[in-house]
This record gives sequence, structure tokens and C-alpha cells, in this order.
Amino acid sequence: MKDMALTLPTYDDMLAAHDRIRPYIHRTPVLTSSYFNELTGAELFFKCENFQKAGAFKVRGASNAVFGLSDAMAEKGVATHSSGNHALSLSYAAGRRGIPCHVVMPRTAPEAKKAAVRGYGGIITECEPSTSSREAVFAEVQARTGAEFVHPYNDPRVIAGQATCSRELLDQVEDLDIMIAPIGGGGMISGTCLTLSHAAPGIDIIAAEPEQADDAYRSFKAGRIIADDAPQTIADGLKVPLKELTWHFVSNYVTDILTASEEEIVDAMKLTWQRMKIVMEPSCAVPLATILKNRDRFAGKRVGVIVTGGNVDLDKLPWMKS
Amino acid sequence: MKDMALTLPTYDDMLAAHDRIRPYIHRTPVLTSSYFNELTGAELFFKCENFQKAGAFKVRGASNAVFGLSDAMAEKGVATHSSGNHALSLSYAAGRRGIPCHVVMPRTAPEAKKAAVRGYGGIITECEPSTSSREAVFAEVQARTGAEFVHPYNDPRVIAGQATCSRELLDQVEDLDIMIAPIGGGGMISGTCLTLSHAAPGIDIIAAEPEQADDAYRSFKAGRIIADDAPQTIADGLKVPLKELTWHFVSNYVTDILTASEEEIVDAMKLTWQRMKIVMEPSCAVPLATILKNRDRFAGKRVGVIVTGGNVDLDKLPWMKS
Repeated sequence: MKDMALTLPTYDDMLAAHDRIRPYIHRTPVLTSSYFNELTGAELFFKCENFQKAGAFKVRGASNAVFGLSDAMAEKGVATHSSGNHALSLSYAAGRRGIPCHVVMPRTAPEAKKAAVRGYGGIITECEPSTSSREAVFAEVQARTGAEFVHPYNDPRVIAGQATCSRELLDQVEDLDIMIAPIGGGGMISGTCLTLSHAAPGIDIIAAEPEQADDAYRSFKAGRIIADDAPQTIADGLKVPLKELTWHFVSNYVTDILTASEEEIVDAMKLTWQRMKIVMEPSCAVPLATILKNRDRFAGKRVGVIVTGGNVDLDKLPWMKS
Repeated sequence: MKDMALTLPTYDDMLAAHDRIRPYIHRTPVLTSSYFNELTGAELFFKCENFQKAGAFKVRGASNAVFGLSDAMAEKGVATHSSGNHALSLSYAAGRRGIPCHVVMPRTAPEAKKAAVRGYGGIITECEPSTSSREAVFAEVQARTGAEFVHPYNDPRVIAGQATCSRELLDQVEDLDIMIAPIGGGGMISGTCLTLSHAAPGIDIIAAEPEQADDAYRSFKAGRIIADDAPQTIADGLKVPLKELTWHFVSNYVTDILTASEEEIVDAMKLTWQRMKIVMEPSCAVPLATILKNRDRFAGKRVGVIVTGGNVDLDKLPWMKS
């Protein structure tokens, strides 16, 4: 599917994706918190994709890819490499269609995520925790099975699917000034750019990234993709680098990229659990961490915060003593 | 306020309470989970009072008591003894009215709850973790301050306030067969009885209790109040005994009381965090634990589950190694 990487998804692709995936996803709720509004001076609207099917927004893109396949293409199943939530989501979507899903996952991925992938019927092949190993092992799996590759983010079908999230948020909350989401490979941010650049170009798009995996931040400043191999951060969904398609959206439409330290991410995560009573994973605490760190930038604004997922290993919470 | 304990709250009191407290509480959402529906064979509707102001349903009763006081009565403030959430809630409500709130709490109560009470402006006096010590220390505090006593549950104003929760649930979900809630002192269950006995007498009312603090279960079977002094359970909101008012409702309107072991409670709590991505405290996992234990009884039914609160100490989760 090399050609796909060069095909930009359109706003109409997003609308078609939304119609296609609606039976398989939740229209997730938007929560507010007077505590966080007072703390930040902003009006925050949390789009809770942690309540999404399979526990994360990634089911949007995965479902769009799976249910867009012809019967002939679908027969051999789908395959992917993923740091976690895309694997869960593709397994879920493939299960709903009744086709196999092959997943290459780092052996160091949280046990809770591996068990959940298997719970949805995904077939796991493990690799080392580096981009290079993942790609090598994946090539072998794909050659053996002939399954359709669904990249976690560098795929127009996936980006069009993720773009349905910000479309819903626009329908749920009026007059936003800013939307903010985490950035790893850039699938969610690219989808947000796709929707907002067409439907609400006046809304600033801010990406939030861990300091310890700040390749997107450095790419943004340098004007070209800078990719790190195997960065270390508690925000395990955000270790992967930008690719051609997501770089297109990031470089053209993102207003700014802000970063947060590991401690700031964990503090924001814990504070959200305490005050909002929702389970969010470390990756999706990064936007709130950057808001708390840059209050002047957000004060007085209406801010849509995409809470990307809630899949954590409850036996290995970052504030637990190991 | 001795006379109050003999005054039964009415359905009109509940309606008046709802009008009185509406500016100070959330109309909490009802969540569903396809995972738990498949697991139980029932249709479960979770009324999420963990998202309530101050993190628990108790703000309903506390607000009704505080905002129902005359200015003259309010001047000296309010006072209570509480295992936690009522203390938080009364402090919150008193703060909203701008009057002092005196709280007697066991010295063994979770640090997170003490800090939260102080965060809402509550003034804490500590006692030993037994009903007898709590009552003795409280008498001293009340004599010293002259504050209006708001009992955590044996108070018609409080029961009328808690009753607004099941009123909302009736409005949010049609055709329920069963409502289930935890039982400690019986405030929430009594409120549920108050509302349902008037507005929906065909709905079964089931109370859920820890095996290790099963005084309500034994009272229900014996036909009289049996009170234990200082039972031990992870469900720390459910250690207190029934009193005259709540016994009236429990003995007249509750369909059945079911119990769950400590392990079953913790398993249900953890499973809810994992699958529903919401933070619930041990006390409010007891209903789900009893549903999972008694599937035949709930299968095929539409069940309203009152998720009573989400105030936990994230540094002392029951599945953490200490």
C-alpha cells in the first residue's frame, strides 16, 4: 500500500468515515470540571475518548480502515504494528467484521494492553522496543499472511477516521478558541487539522508532547521530520515519530507544539483521576500538563481537550512504588 | 434536634429539596457498558454520583440541610460526624452558603478525605474509629459551638436530599426493573425508597452490603436494628449502623439485601476502573460485586446501579502492595 501514504485524506473522506464507523463507535461525552476551570482560568471541555470502544480514539481510524475494505481485500485480514491502542482498536474492528487481525507489539508493552489485544481476538507477534525492530518483524508477518497493512497513523483512512473526533467536538461545544491533543505519530492531530482547516479554520490547534519524546516539537521548529529511535517516556503512546502524511498536516496547520516533563505528566494524570474521577492514561494527560504549565496562554479561552484514551495497567501506576 | 429523628420525609419534601439544591449539584450522567451487560446478562445503568460535586451523592442531602436553614440557625454553622463523604459534602455546602462547618472524623480516615474536607474549609476534630468515640467527641464539639447538627443519614432533610438521585435516574432511564445501591447507615437506600415507593412502586429496591459489615443484612433478617461497633471493611463508607429513620424505610420498602466479600468488592472496583474508565471508591463497588455474584437474579433485568462516590486515596489502592 505504498501509494496510500501519498494520498491526502479530504474532508469528504472524514464525512464518509463518520457514516461508515458510526455503528461501531461511541459518540463520546464532553465533560467539564469547575476545579480545572478555576485552576487554569480557562474553560476546558474534555472530549472523553477514554470512554470510547476499546478505550481510545484509535478505534475511529481502525474501524474506518477495516470497514472500508472490499470483501476480497478483507479476506486475508489486517495487520499492524502499534504501541498499544491502535492494536486494541484494529483487533476490535476486525472482530466486529469477523476477519483476522495480526499485531506486532513491543515485548515491553504493558501486559494489560497485550491481554486486551488477545481479548479482542488479535494475534500478537512480539518485537524489540525500537522502531527499526518493529518494522523488520512486521515485514515478515505481512509477507507470511498477506494481510492488509493498516498503519497506526500514516494512512489516509486512519487519519480520516480520527478526524471524526474533532467533528463531534465541534458539534458538542460552540465557540472554541483552541483544540489541544497529544502528539506521537500525529494521527489524532492530523485528523484534527483535517476537520478544523475545513470547518473551523479560526480555532488554534495545539499539539502536546512529552519533553522526553519531543521529536515532533523539534521537527516543527526545524521544518523537517526528525525521528528518534526508541525514546523513553511514561507516555507510551507517544514514542513513535511523524511520517509523511502526518507531517503534511502538522507542518501546514498546527499552531504550536508544547511539551511537558515526566513529572508534570504524572501530576496532571493523577490530579485528573482525583478531581474528575476518570481514568486517563499517561499519554492523554500531556495536554492538561502543558495547559497547567502555560496558564497565560490558555486563560480566558474556550479549550477543547481531547482525552485520547484510558488504557492503563492498574498494577503499574506511575505513582506506585515499584 | 431530637424531634427531627421522628419526622418522616415525604415525597413533597424530596421535590422541594430538588428545587433547593439544584444550583449546587450536578445532574449526574448515566453510563452504560456493553462489557458489563454481556458479563451479567442484565442491562445496567450506572448513575454516576462519583462525578457529583465533592465526589459523592452525599452533597445532595448536605446541601438540602444547609440551604434549608433559616439565617438565624445558619449563623452558628453546621456540625457532623462522618466516615468521609458526608463531611466533604457538608463542608462544600456550608462553604457555598458562607457558614462554618465542624466535622468529627475518625483519626484513621483516609488522608485524602481529611485533606479534602480541609480543602472545602471544614474544621476537623478527630476521634477514635468507633461509633461510641465518635458520638462522645461530637457531643463536646456541638456543645462548644452551638452549630446545627446534620446527621450523615438519620435526618429527614438528608434523606429527602438523597432521594433526588433516584428521582433523576427515573427521569433518565425508562422501565427499570430494579434499583440497587450500597447500604451503610441507609441514607441513600432510604432516599431511594422514599422516591420509588411514591413514584415507581413496581421497581425492586436492592441494598448491597459488605459481608464484613453486614449489620443491615442481619437487621433485615431479624426485623430489628442490629448495630455493630467498628466493623472492618475496605468499603469505609459503609461501616455505620442503621438508625430509626433509615430503618423505617429499609424495613418497609427494601426488597432484599445482598452481601459481597472484601475480595469480590475489590475485584468489582478494579474491573470497573479497567473497563468503564471511571474512578469509583470501594463502597460503591459493592452493588456491582453483588450483581456479579448473583447473576441469575439480575439477568434479563434493567437495573439502575447507583455509583455513590469516587473519593479514593490514589496512593493506597486496595490492589497495591503496601
